Amino acid sequence: MTELPESEVDVLIIGAGPAGLMLALWLARLGVKTRIVDKRTDKVYSGQADGFQVRSLEILDSFGVGERVWKEANRMLEISFWNPDSSGAIFRSAHSVNTIPGLSRFTESVLHQGRIEGFFLDAIRDSDTPDQALRVERMVIPTSLEIDESAVEDADAHPVTVTLRHLTEEEATPTQMLSNLADGIFRSNLADDDVGDILERSKAREARDEIVRAKYVVGCDGAHSWTRKTLGKEFEMKGETTDAIWGVMDIVPITDFPDIRFRTMIHSTSGAIMIIPRENRMVRLYIQLKEVSAGSGRVDRSQITPDFIFKSAQKIFSPYKLEYHYCDWWTAYQIGQRTGDHFSKLDRVFLAGDAVHTHSPKAGQGMNVSMQDSYNLGWKIGLVSKGILPREILSTYELERKKIAKDLIDFDGKFSKLFSGRPAKDIMDETGVSSDEFQKAFHTSRMFTTGVGVNYEPTVLVAKEAEEGTDHGLNGLKRSTAKSTQSLATNCKLGQRFPSHKVIRQSDARLWELHHKLPSNGRFRLVVFGGDISQQSQRDTVNNFGAWLKFYMPKLPTIKLLPGSDPHSGSMKFITDEDPSIVDVLLVHSAPRDKIDLLGDVHEVYHPFDPKLGWDYDKVFADGETYYEEPARAYEKYGIDKSKGAVVGLRPDGYVGLVTPVSEEGQQEIEKWFGGIFQHE
Amino acid sequence: MTELPESEVDVLIIGAGPAGLMLALWLARLGVKTRIVDKRTDKVYSGQADGFQVRSLEILDSFGVGERVWKEANRMLEISFWNPDSSGAIFRSAHSVNTIPGLSRFTESVLHQGRIEGFFLDAIRDSDTPDQALRVERMVIPTSLEIDESAVEDADAHPVTVTLRHLTEEEATPTQMLSNLADGIFRSNLADDDVGDILERSKAREARDEIVRAKYVVGCDGAHSWTRKTLGKEFEMKGETTDAIWGVMDIVPITDFPDIRFRTMIHSTSGAIMIIPRENRMVRLYIQLKEVSAGSGRVDRSQITPDFIFKSAQKIFSPYKLEYHYCDWWTAYQIGQRTGDHFSKLDRVFLAGDAVHTHSPKAGQGMNVSMQDSYNLGWKIGLVSKGILPREILSTYELERKKIAKDLIDFDGKFSKLFSGRPAKDIMDETGVSSDEFQKAFHTSRMFTTGVGVNYEPTVLVAKEAEEGTDHGLNGLKRSTAKSTQSLATNCKLGQRFPSHKVIRQSDARLWELHHKLPSNGRFRLVVFGGDISQQSQRDTVNNFGAWLKFYMPKLPTIKLLPGSDPHSGSMKFITDEDPSIVDVLLVHSAPRDKIDLLGDVHEVYHPFDPKLGWDYDKVFADGETYYEEPARAYEKYGIDKSKGAVVGLRPDGYVGLVTPVSEEGQQEIEKWFGGIFQHE
Repeated sequence: MTELPESEVDVLIIGAGPAGLMLALWLARLGVKTRIVDKRTDKVYSGQADGFQVRSLEILDSFGVGERVWKEANRMLEISFWNPDSSGAIFRSAHSVNTIPGLSRFTESVLHQGRIEGFFLDAIRDSDTPDQALRVERMVIPTSLEIDESAVEDADAHPVTVTLRHLTEEEATPTQMLSNLADGIFRSNLADDDVGDILERSKAREARDEIVRAKYVVGCDGAHSWTRKTLGKEFEMKGETTDAIWGVMDIVPITDFPDIRFRTMIHSTSGAIMIIPRENRMVRLYIQLKEVSAGSGRVDRSQITPDFIFKSAQKIFSPYKLEYHYCDWWTAYQIGQRTGDHFSKLDRVFLAGDAVHTHSPKAGQGMNVSMQDSYNLGWKIGLVSKGILPREILSTYELERKKIAKDLIDFDGKFSKLFSGRPAKDIMDETGVSSDEFQKAFHTSRMFTTGVGVNYEPTVLVAKEAEEGTDHGLNGLKRSTAKSTQSLATNCKLGQRFPSHKVIRQSDARLWELHHKLPSNGRFRLVVFGGDISQQSQRDTVNNFGAWLKFYMPKLPTIKLLPGSDPHSGSMKFITDEDPSIVDVLLVHSAPRDKIDLLGDVHEVYHPFDPKLGWDYDKVFADGETYYEEPARAYEKYGIDKSKGAVVGLRPDGYVGLVTPVSEEGQQEIEKWFGGIFQHE
Repeated sequence: MTELPESEVDVLIIGAGPAGLMLALWLARLGVKTRIVDKRTDKVYSGQADGFQVRSLEILDSFGVGERVWKEANRMLEISFWNPDSSGAIFRSAHSVNTIPGLSRFTESVLHQGRIEGFFLDAIRDSDTPDQALRVERMVIPTSLEIDESAVEDADAHPVTVTLRHLTEEEATPTQMLSNLADGIFRSNLADDDVGDILERSKAREARDEIVRAKYVVGCDGAHSWTRKTLGKEFEMKGETTDAIWGVMDIVPITDFPDIRFRTMIHSTSGAIMIIPRENRMVRLYIQLKEVSAGSGRVDRSQITPDFIFKSAQKIFSPYKLEYHYCDWWTAYQIGQRTGDHFSKLDRVFLAGDAVHTHSPKAGQGMNVSMQDSYNLGWKIGLVSKGILPREILSTYELERKKIAKDLIDFDGKFSKLFSGRPAKDIMDETGVSSDEFQKAFHTSRMFTTGVGVNYEPTVLVAKEAEEGTDHGLNGLKRSTAKSTQSLATNCKLGQRFPSHKVIRQSDARLWELHHKLPSNGRFRLVVFGGDISQQSQRDTVNNFGAWLKFYMPKLPTIKLLPGSDPHSGSMKFITDEDPSIVDVLLVHSAPRDKIDLLGDVHEVYHPFDPKLGWDYDKVFADGETYYEEPARAYEKYGIDKSKGAVVGLRPDGYVGLVTPVSEEGQQEIEKWFGGIFQHE
């Protein structure tokens, strides 16, 4: 037997769906040596996941990808609820706003998975110079994984050994995939895993195998996750499967139903439908299939055809007419919710996305929670690989994301049950689901479903007090010794994502979403809300704080920035030769803009000098009036007092880790906070 | 001698700068058989023109290109004026808004010519299926042009014969171009035309010539236009050349000057500078070179070096310091203004852009007026080529654009004189230019410099009365027999561009810039402002009008739409098999949205049915409230009464051609207006 080729890599990602691609993008932006493999021949072309929650759009925008989704996606702004009247005919029982206005600059949107996968691939390619760019290796399947447990605590070791098999195109193409329309079930949870089949077929040929030694391996390989199965029995997912079967169709509808371009929930006596209006004049219908029941065992798949599903839809729409000429995709699935107890093994092999939590698709959560899993993991694994963060940080991944997965399956179980339930005939009908009850459940879940409600626990990364009864255990992790003063910035909630509001660039009067100055490039941030620095005493306070920063910052690590690191820089793009600090400092003041001279009034730490590029004109922002647009109201929206100000400390993923005063006390808390994170003292 | 290859084309464009590319994009979107040739080996990579006026951005946005410029360009929002104080030191004498707030959703922006040329090329490529896509043929030079005058009035003839010579790369590369920094003058108006050189060199080799027979030829070949020279002496440009020489440098400045990121005009005792902050931390400086004088003849080019120009800049900036490490581009030019009497020969060969008007670059007009020339010409030549419009329409090009060229050189002459003048010492200094005088001239010219002030004359295309004393002659063109009622839509000015305001899509509550529903795809538009159609009588009025439209529209031509024809369609993209009418109908009502049922209340002409795609949900819009954004105030902003409404007729370039009531009277005026344009009766 010939020796297999061997190589080393920092991170090996298994699976190039949304979770794997988000992780690959993070690592590409950080310049971490990464490989990403996928068993499929190509990305998804139609159907599959399609819902983008507002937090996902914010995250994608932090990589410069959000605007592409935002342009092409269909936005769901309002929602209709339809119910049967006493004669059984459906009527519009309510129409209202879909998500929560003011929560984000984005709203819930819909675009098929293939497009976002394409956007990820483009963004990964643009992260670095073309010769360095990361590429997805397709038709590659892992066949073994071993961890050298003696080396897991050695930061420089590559203790995970994976064997990869490179398939031919024929081997990697499942026979069901020859036409999407021929069998819409092949990727559904009604279908079996096909990896065994693929490996079986590849055995018959001369396999081209290789061995990869990785610092870290991340399984983003979906509900049938090979990585999860390989890690052993304690990684098995647990949960329930119901007997509710739903069909899904993406069609261009021909109908007289008046709300076809609104997100709509129909409860009729023939079953329920959710309407998701999409891009390219299409509409996705989630259709309850009351006539097939899973019962105790498996569903008879041959019963479930597009025709069968569509006939069910027509019955529910009645008396409105529904036809179609064009169907883009269809599938069916069985409702169930499952999650695992462990998200990592020894903090060397991790699971993300469907590999650790599965649920029904109707609430549009799957792709979002999956991408947000690896968004949480990416910067941690990346900065640890680069030696900037200690390995201990990695334990925060499971701590932070397991809670979300649990919330997700709880929400999905409840929501699915309400949606699949029989509509109540009237107020006395106790076993039916009333329209009010359903609407209420929908609206109260919005903070969760938008992804904005995520609230991470206190750890070294988030300097806050644990709320009573919410301590989910720290996996042996320490807490930050820093103390925050939440009251200084009431809408910058510790553990939650820092919201985006508009601010005005001091140097050229351009209005910016503050998020656009906080791209995902691995840097922590101190946003110094300096208050009214046209007042001498406040200016002194802010400049004294600047003088301290100038002294303190050199004690922190630096980070190399790649070409893609600042996708919204526009007129200020120009990467310096010098690696900047891992901590970026921004000043947002509330003084009248014309009273402030950027170079003369403000400490140079807020407009750093570069010998080749001159002063940095992109770090100081004002609140207040502009000539062309509505005034910025940043202080009010962030809940910050204009006379006192506040310093808000952000993690590289934009979550608030510290709120502290612009003062000596603040300096001490910042030292404690970063001290706990970087462990440099 | 071997026979030369011959071929036919509808339109041959000579020159692939901004004017030529804009024309090529129009013709690509219309599916007109076009070739575009350029003598250069490649597009511009740095420097050259850079200013985008708001109207240009609107036009680019109508092709889906605007947002790319808007994202990358630097926006110039405020402007500073600096003057010498009594001791000669410069001080900020004023700081104010740059253009006019509320005029457009865009503001004046700056991005180098190479980027916009690249965006044009991408958009041209995306106009049609890849195999049909138009491409620029580079290193091609015309050597002869003849018009068969006997065939010019035959709509199907190809009466223009052009010989094209295909050069080798070596022949096409001017020696000066080896480095931009080595000789910044090579494209300046201080340099000689190099076409003669190129042809001389190509003679030495075996020339590869071909003959092209075209319906139309457009010379977009710049200030040294070969096309213009070939058309004969009566096409010569006339005007004046001053002795003022200015230098230009694109640098990343290292300076303590406080307004370096604002558009700034400095008048000092050592000369004048205009600061144009740009993309990528660069700044363009226009620097008066007082020490070189053109006098009566040519300037000594060897004197003008980057070092010489920069030293002049440093003197003017004093006492502020100015240095640079990085220079992207430099040049110098002599101020002068010239324009031609004729913009076309027999309406078969046209001139556009610098080929018919040249002036100084400081006001950021050149690229804009050039692009707007060919934006005016493109749909006319395209729809005439396709047989949709009669040839007579072509005469409106010279009528409409010659006036703009004249206004441009008048403006430039005045502005340049003021800018190159000596600053006044004090209010008694009558020969100097006072700061007040300069600022006033700057602000009063803004309607012109934004491009929004353009006001086309009455012709068949614009049904309005001629203002007294403004009739520039009609070139034998008829006027429209339709009469407009301007008072019905006071801010939709006849002959001016229809402004964009926000409206809410009835079918899904999404807020849109109305411009995004008026892409440049060759279609005329009737925007029916239907008023409050929740009132039965007004609804009847609008639906009666719809019934008439349904009857009238089939009398009009149809147009085939290509894949790129609707760049902002987003969720509504899906091109039908059937060619739609050349006239697109949109309904904007002012009723409360929730009182209107799109399918039930509104005549189907406002939501046309397609047998494969169902109803069109993208044609009816409302004014008023939304959940997520500021309310739309379209009626107020368009100056339209909510009870009566109005119909606004738009040309394919978005200029208002008719304002008429939603009534039988309106129907008659519409018939007259389109009757005069299409000559179908």
